[in-house]
Amino acid sequence: MKITNALVNVCSPGRNFVTLKIETDDGIYGLGDATLNGREMAVVSYLTEHVIPCLIGRDPFQTEDIWQYLYRGAYWRRGPVTMAAIAAVDVSLWDIKGKALRTPVYNLLGGKSREGVLVYAHAHGSTVEEAVDDVGRHVELGYLAVRAQSGVPGLESTYGVPKGTQAYEPAERGLPSESRWSSELYLRHTPRLFQKIREAFGEDVHLLHDCHHRLTPIEAARLGKDLEPFHLFWMEDPIPAELQVGFKLLREHTTTPIATGEVFNTIWDAHDLIRRQWIDYIRTSVVHAGGFTHLKKIADFAAIYNVRTGCHGATDLSPITMAAALHFGIAIHNFGIQEHMPHSAETDEVFPHAYRFDAGYMYPGDAPGLGVDIDESLASKYPYQRAYLPINRKLDGTLTDW
Amino acid sequence: MKITNALVNVCSPGRNFVTLKIETDDGIYGLGDATLNGREMAVVSYLTEHVIPCLIGRDPFQTEDIWQYLYRGAYWRRGPVTMAAIAAVDVSLWDIKGKALRTPVYNLLGGKSREGVLVYAHAHGSTVEEAVDDVGRHVELGYLAVRAQSGVPGLESTYGVPKGTQAYEPAERGLPSESRWSSELYLRHTPRLFQKIREAFGEDVHLLHDCHHRLTPIEAARLGKDLEPFHLFWMEDPIPAELQVGFKLLREHTTTPIATGEVFNTIWDAHDLIRRQWIDYIRTSVVHAGGFTHLKKIADFAAIYNVRTGCHGATDLSPITMAAALHFGIAIHNFGIQEHMPHSAETDEVFPHAYRFDAGYMYPGDAPGLGVDIDESLASKYPYQRAYLPINRKLDGTLTDW
Amino acid sequence: MKITNALVNVCSPGRNFVTLKIETDDGIYGLGDATLNGREMAVVSYLTEHVIPCLIGRDPFQTEDIWQYLYRGAYWRRGPVTMAAIAAVDVSLWDIKGKALRTPVYNLLGGKSREGVLVYAHAHGSTVEEAVDDVGRHVELGYLAVRAQSGVPGLESTYGVPKGTQAYEPAERGLPSESRWSSELYLRHTPRLFQKIREAFGEDVHLLHDCHHRLTPIEAARLGKDLEPFHLFWMEDPIPAELQVGFKLLREHTTTPIATGEVFNTIWDAHDLIRRQWIDYIRTSVVHAGGFTHLKKIADFAAIYNVRTGCHGATDLSPITMAAALHFGIAIHNFGIQEHMPHSAETDEVFPHAYRFDAGYMYPGDAPGLGVDIDESLASKYPYQRAYLPINRKLDGTLTDW
Amino acid sequence: MKITNALVNVCSPGRNFVTLKIETDDGIYGLGDATLNGREMAVVSYLTEHVIPCLIGRDPFQTEDIWQYLYRGAYWRRGPVTMAAIAAVDVSLWDIKGKALRTPVYNLLGGKSREGVLVYAHAHGSTVEEAVDDVGRHVELGYLAVRAQSGVPGLESTYGVPKGTQAYEPAERGLPSESRWSSELYLRHTPRLFQKIREAFGEDVHLLHDCHHRLTPIEAARLGKDLEPFHLFWMEDPIPAELQVGFKLLREHTTTPIATGEVFNTIWDAHDLIRRQWIDYIRTSVVHAGGFTHLKKIADFAAIYNVRTGCHGATDLSPITMAAALHFGIAIHNFGIQEHMPHSAETDEVFPHAYRFDAGYMYPGDAPGLGVDIDESLASKYPYQRAYLPINRKLDGTLTDW
Repeated sequence: MKITNALVNVCSPGRNFVTLKIETDDGIYGLGDATLNGREMAVVSYLTEHVIPCLIGRDPFQTEDIWQYLYRGAYWRRGPVTMAAIAAVDVSLWDIKGKALRTPVYNLLGGKSREGVLVYAHAHGSTVEEAVDDVGRHVELGYLAVRAQSGVPGLESTYGVPKGTQAYEPAERGLPSESRWSSELYLRHTPRLFQKIREAFGEDVHLLHDCHHRLTPIEAARLGKDLEPFHLFWMEDPIPAELQVGFKLLREHTTTPIATGEVFNTIWDAHDLIRRQWIDYIRTSVVHAGGFTHLKKIADFAAIYNVRTGCHGATDLSPITMAAALHFGIAIHNFGIQEHMPHSAETDEVFPHAYRFDAGYMYPGDAPGLGVDIDESLASKYPYQRAYLPINRKLDGTLTDW
Repeated sequence: MKITNALVNVCSPGRNFVTLKIETDDGIYGLGDATLNGREMAVVSYLTEHVIPCLIGRDPFQTEDIWQYLYRGAYWRRGPVTMAAIAAVDVSLWDIKGKALRTPVYNLLGGKSREGVLVYAHAHGSTVEEAVDDVGRHVELGYLAVRAQSGVPGLESTYGVPKGTQAYEPAERGLPSESRWSSELYLRHTPRLFQKIREAFGEDVHLLHDCHHRLTPIEAARLGKDLEPFHLFWMEDPIPAELQVGFKLLREHTTTPIATGEVFNTIWDAHDLIRRQWIDYIRTSVVHAGGFTHLKKIADFAAIYNVRTGCHGATDLSPITMAAALHFGIAIHNFGIQEHMPHSAETDEVFPHAYRFDAGYMYPGDAPGLGVDIDESLASKYPYQRAYLPINRKLDGTLTDW
Repeated sequence: MKITNALVNVCSPGRNFVTLKIETDDGIYGLGDATLNGREMAVVSYLTEHVIPCLIGRDPFQTEDIWQYLYRGAYWRRGPVTMAAIAAVDVSLWDIKGKALRTPVYNLLGGKSREGVLVYAHAHGSTVEEAVDDVGRHVELGYLAVRAQSGVPGLESTYGVPKGTQAYEPAERGLPSESRWSSELYLRHTPRLFQKIREAFGEDVHLLHDCHHRLTPIEAARLGKDLEPFHLFWMEDPIPAELQVGFKLLREHTTTPIATGEVFNTIWDAHDLIRRQWIDYIRTSVVHAGGFTHLKKIADFAAIYNVRTGCHGATDLSPITMAAALHFGIAIHNFGIQEHMPHSAETDEVFPHAYRFDAGYMYPGDAPGLGVDIDESLASKYPYQRAYLPINRKLDGTLTDW
Repeated sequence: MKITNALVNVCSPGRNFVTLKIETDDGIYGLGDATLNGREMAVVSYLTEHVIPCLIGRDPFQTEDIWQYLYRGAYWRRGPVTMAAIAAVDVSLWDIKGKALRTPVYNLLGGKSREGVLVYAHAHGSTVEEAVDDVGRHVELGYLAVRAQSGVPGLESTYGVPKGTQAYEPAERGLPSESRWSSELYLRHTPRLFQKIREAFGEDVHLLHDCHHRLTPIEAARLGKDLEPFHLFWMEDPIPAELQVGFKLLREHTTTPIATGEVFNTIWDAHDLIRRQWIDYIRTSVVHAGGFTHLKKIADFAAIYNVRTGCHGATDLSPITMAAALHFGIAIHNFGIQEHMPHSAETDEVFPHAYRFDAGYMYPGDAPGLGVDIDESLASKYPYQRAYLPINRKLDGTLTDW
């Protein structure tokens, strides 16, 4: 079997998605997600101008060699654009391999290690009361784990909380919006949110929270300690992670479990975080970390150090990545939890898929390969529109992490 | 597909082999090697009495879950008997998976990462001159890499050197033979061996040497330095490895590359050796380390730390393990070299196989699964005979490592 | 004196026991326990096929040389099967030595270092209330130290708690039973158990608890902190211990003392745990760690780092191991505590013994050797029946540590 | 002053260059190089589609805020595409700032710290003899420091050595070429090259050598030791650098100075390398590491640990980057050396510039800003042509680092 062609589709059924389709001489094709939220067209060019010409004629079963070819062969390594492009190729090839061998991808990754993939939902509210209600709404929908975020008194807008009544989607069309931030206000407010949620729902629901990279290590340590009575499943992205040893200080102060890594692209971004046991969950996703070939190595490395997976799964990842995450999550041993933020109806129509949600768990389905497709003619009705993630500034105007 | 039956075959076509055969309801069966040289029957009982009853009815594609079931479910973990039994199951299941999906196992492990699997041969002689000649003989056979061992003046017999004219096979029927050892005599002699080989053949052949766990760290450091002018591919098993940090001392003194790990059973036996970069090649084999499922994790861990594989491949591993090693070696990225000690003609007849040697490289062949079978009726003509590896004592009678 | 014969007895007076009997030319014989719960027959074969032929004719007083012969001479090292077989030989030889010298084994290990061996009992209940009652029952029996376990609301069965009214015995005949596990439910529940016990009995009884390898390091750290007000004697096996440095994280968060090591086989399994002071009690037993010869070295190493012994002593160890543990515990300096789970009346009949319980302490008795025998004709009435320890899965079906 | 417009120019006067031009409302414009060899169009899209729209209306003097805006505001961080785009913006803004203040950029970076910028040239030959001659030719041209590379007997082509008689330029039009590599052949050969060069020219010329990421740590340690008698100025890129601690092993074995970092994009890629003192020279360039704003911080960090700069300066960086490197190199205190590979005449015509070479040193000139311009109409005569860096494989076909 040989690769004969590869094409990149960019569509925007509510938000932008970049999709790679690799075709072979026996008629099988594979799909890979290459979406990099807010920087989509850089990946498109990376694939179209530089990667695709090198793929034609190759054996799609050589997933390891092609991965190394694209990673080492580019000379300039790592980073979100590079690794998203490599991921799109890698996931496409595993989709082809599964289809060619007539088996779901999870069987190629080690077979089923569990019955379903535990997912967590997003709940939010502009006030604590609204957030508590939204947690309740998700519990009623059957979720066993819920991430809760609420507006912070004194701040006009906050990460994770929609401005109006529609579903939360941080990427906005037009130029980047700017919001203001105060760690002091946030630290004072957040424990009260979780106190109220526990009072309302008791201990039977897993609660998660996302700090979204905005604290210093000692601030995160304070928050971790303050949240201990509420038994969080995890505290996510407490601090920016370029300085991995920054987590050491936090880690010495609290037993609140820590998750990080959605912005990571390779194992090197998490190497010390994992082997020093400074985190409990690694959130790196298939689409941002070079596909199954590399993410499996990250997960296996993490398993040695008692670190479990908790892959990023917001709507900036297309249903192809959602399917990939579920095949991955049902197969590896040290799975922890999977983020689940439902796609819009338009997106689900453009990407028909075999996976489904039931009673707190998701299931990849048993179709060969990934079990997800793209309706290209429908996709063409939603042309790409430039959109950006927001910018965040402190009250004095200092640019800070969003 | 379900596992319907599993049987253990013990035969001795020249030496003992333990073979697991797992059968399924759609007629496909898989084979796994369970040979533990000198302790064969412990693995047979482990499989027959304790493991096989738990396998019946399981889905053979669930390789990860079954591995964890046998490893964690036994409660008592690690060790050669346990891990050889688990390996036999795991390799059998991957053989089944390959056959069921009609593809060679290497495609399930990532596809081909190279054209062939570089192997090294064993050369030896009771004197330096005989050893030099034997290196030459192997170079003529096409080998690109040769391990050289010679008799040590003053010692009656030495590891790696046959007593008579037949092929070297350390396991002997009857009770364990005992040999005598002097590190002093060995350290004085060995550099001369490699000086003579380099004088005879120049730099164009890879040379390897096995210390077989017999030195202290400071002795090994001396030998490593003494061998530097002869540019060894590796110095193998310089010291016993239970104390992993023992390699640190050696490592600080010499740039001669170090290989170890044929007696390891899990990643934990090599964890510090690898992550501290005290070795260059990890020699753990499919059959002694829990099969493909675990060995792939060891290799991927090693890749992070610039450590390559150099799997054990003596004749105590049956052709099933040789096939497995070749599928593994052609697929993973950080392959280094593979040991190759040809089996007897009787063994090759009992285990017909697709792999072959050509011009210094071996090739797994393209048959579905592992491409190796067992002729059970022929095997039955070679019943098990108890055999032991030798015992080693210092000149004063102290029991030491063989 | 020479070893003339050795025999392995397998009997099942309620549960399976493997017993080695070594006979000598002057009529003295020694006994050693070789029971490996759920994998018994692998040890039987290891001894019968591979070890016993090498023993005949040897001097039974050469306990060190024979230990090294079996450990280094096997080439393939460590692991539960190997080390249980070596332990059976070693304990038998010390029994012979004691009998030959007409002195209890404890005198050969250094003589009495204390008057009695402090033991702890097992208390349990399906509810907190039942568990509190059972602690009271053991206090009334004279125990000064009690391990407490209770059922966890929301989980059908829990480690350490019998399903019906009979004594707790986890190994079950037939195939392995499977139970479900939730760390979240357990972590929420367990502090309440110890709060109630302390309320009922005050501070005058030593309380112990066994997590049975089921937590991650950060979960164990949380539990350790939550249990601090109740002053546990120890928290046992909080996490799986292959990654020894996993205990570092736990250790930084709590002053609750930590015990681990019942599944260890050699000092290498505990080397970092001890020298880094990550544990307070080492639980490795005579039967699983190569006998007196090796366990004495582990205890001496532990003494250097302020670590005391707390040897495993469940009913999967025969009265021979109980006797050995008491000789060991009364002799070494850094003894901590000894687990005591009384055998069934049938077992006590098959293995008549000199040891006894009195007022919270046990005493090995003063008979020569170990002071324990086997009634082989009675044993023959209880033939071996295959039995397994349970398998444990998380709520989503992931295989986890039992 | 406000940014009013920004444009990306792609031209190929011999090889591809990507140039950003930022225009302001008072008529001043600045230039920045955004060339990423072999992945040029990904940076073009990153700039055009995602970065430029955010720049319009901003104050070009806010170099720090704009840097943070592009780095933190993108959310997805690091990597060659991202950081090359940010560098192009940053260098353009410093060019504007210099022009607006009517001063060379070096004055904004701290003023002149030295009289000239020591540079090293590239010498090469397909044989040792040719390479020796080429070193001599460069010495005659006035170079005080020369990097020497030669063909390796047994390998068809080697990094750093042109195939024919024209200037060495690794990027080739069409699909990536593939070469074969053998560390063994290279290690055997290279010391002889430097022995011959020293024999010919004595000690009065600085000699450098580039291993181009192709060795393992232990191989690099051997080479470092073998080269010690020839007193290299540095050994460059001995090993791939994702595993920074990989340099520790090398560092313990040799005093040959080490340089690395041309593929780095942020300080995080070199953080341990620098603070552990595993390298002597940091080679990260203005164009690949986010511009002056970030590179200045890297250099200042390096100064703390006695590490000096040795910026990448091959022809894949346009004259804009050469100018930037010279302003940078003349200004910072811990400057080491600057690579100099002259551009083609066509390139020099497209990018008229103020910098010049004289007697082993280069000088940035004293024009305001960077002192380099682009002739856009001439540039338009050299349209972009896809080109790739080569791919490298070991003799057995394994993909390895080029």
